[in-house]
Amino acid sequence: MALAYDPLFITSEKSAMEAPSPPPMILTQDELKRIAAFKAVEFVESGMVLGLGTGSTAKHAVDRIGELLRQGKLENIVGIPTSKKTQEQALSVGIPLSDLDAHPVIDLSIDGADEVDPFLNLVKGRGGSLLREKMIEGASKKFVVIVDESKMVKHIGGSKLALPVEIVPFCWKFTAEKLRKLLEGYGCEANLRLGEKGKPFVTDNGNYIVDMYLDKDMGDLKVVSDEILRLPGVVEHGMFLDMASTVIIAGELGVKIKNKQAF
Amino acid sequence: MALAYDPLFITSEKSAMEAPSPPPMILTQDELKRIAAFKAVEFVESGMVLGLGTGSTAKHAVDRIGELLRQGKLENIVGIPTSKKTQEQALSVGIPLSDLDAHPVIDLSIDGADEVDPFLNLVKGRGGSLLREKMIEGASKKFVVIVDESKMVKHIGGSKLALPVEIVPFCWKFTAEKLRKLLEGYGCEANLRLGEKGKPFVTDNGNYIVDMYLDKDMGDLKVVSDEILRLPGVVEHGMFLDMASTVIIAGELGVKIKNKQAF
Repeated sequence: MALAYDPLFITSEKSAMEAPSPPPMILTQDELKRIAAFKAVEFVESGMVLGLGTGSTAKHAVDRIGELLRQGKLENIVGIPTSKKTQEQALSVGIPLSDLDAHPVIDLSIDGADEVDPFLNLVKGRGGSLLREKMIEGASKKFVVIVDESKMVKHIGGSKLALPVEIVPFCWKFTAEKLRKLLEGYGCEANLRLGEKGKPFVTDNGNYIVDMYLDKDMGDLKVVSDEILRLPGVVEHGMFLDMASTVIIAGELGVKIKNKQAF
Repeated sequence: MALAYDPLFITSEKSAMEAPSPPPMILTQDELKRIAAFKAVEFVESGMVLGLGTGSTAKHAVDRIGELLRQGKLENIVGIPTSKKTQEQALSVGIPLSDLDAHPVIDLSIDGADEVDPFLNLVKGRGGSLLREKMIEGASKKFVVIVDESKMVKHIGGSKLALPVEIVPFCWKFTAEKLRKLLEGYGCEANLRLGEKGKPFVTDNGNYIVDMYLDKDMGDLKVVSDEILRLPGVVEHGMFLDMASTVIIAGELGVKIKNKQAF
């Protein structure tokens, strides 16, 4: 089903209103994610160094790149995985891998996001890989974000889901409380993310995650970003500001592509 | 010798010029450090929660606090150690310990510094404990810095010694190069700190340290601080800006006390 979507439904934002009415088919969220992922992989060319994202949407892109390599439609690809999980998946589908130390400049990264605002600012990290994603995607000439339409929000925090912050384990309660106080004007709660057996979730870097839940628009995100980063104990946060080049949004009405250049 | 220094030589900055000429005695650097440390401990009162610094100067303060506790001249002290090393030392001299989670507000911290500029901005972290020090000293109502006069510089980086930056081990070469490029306008070199057997030095938080060597004044330190913190992969840096309340400087001509309020 997902592979059979009608390319006529792929629209740029400007022409979205002129698109023909779609047939009455109902796609699952996972099918929408796959549509966005496959569209993003059309940007991939042989010889590229690729940042490989983490999460349920990015997984489809990694699978698709592996498939095109096996079919000989792509060659000389080097993948830079954003997590241990993606590293395993990429190896299993036959993508040759390297790292940022060997390839400090990446041609193209493809990854999902948890939220996308109208200016293409993102929230990422609900999967726990935000630090490596930010390092790799920040080193990319082009960063294509793939989402289903449920991820589009008016402002960061607008989905009532978490803004994750990676912190050092040392005195995590102290740091979590500093974060909560910093953002309390935006109705903030701050909860340590738990993993298996109720123990703290541990990132690939050996750190913890505090999930921040916000009620209100935080206003100037760059100011808030710096305020969060200034707290000692904070390693990185999940706001990816001014980083996405393109966002591919798969929805019931087709695929919409938003480019940074439009702003 | 250090204990016998003449209190007449303790001068505030304003009256430093009026101090009598000292007798021709030569103190070692370690004796000067001890003089500064003992002077700082005069600020300690019974019942206080104390941040305990790390390093060769702070060690004298921890020893002195333990001594005063044993003598019954101080009581009900709770120490918050800034490193595993200080934790061991404090326990060995009988200081009851706790942590930031239990005591998020600290009455007084006492610690050394690697550099102090005329505005009481510091460089810390050549001992490798900068992150915990910044968390604890940043949570202190009063932060007394103790140094010998060799630590006073015109500007941060002015001693030609390192500005340390704590980074995650993941792709550390990439992050070190980003740091070097960020500060290359100031004649920057960036070297991974090595520990035993030529392996990377590992902090108490499981991270690495990149030592930055600078040729020039970096100008607005708050701007540079934010630029460093924005690099994903950076956990914390060793510039302690606008944090010290008081700096106690022990030199051949006596002890000088500089207070933040003077600026």
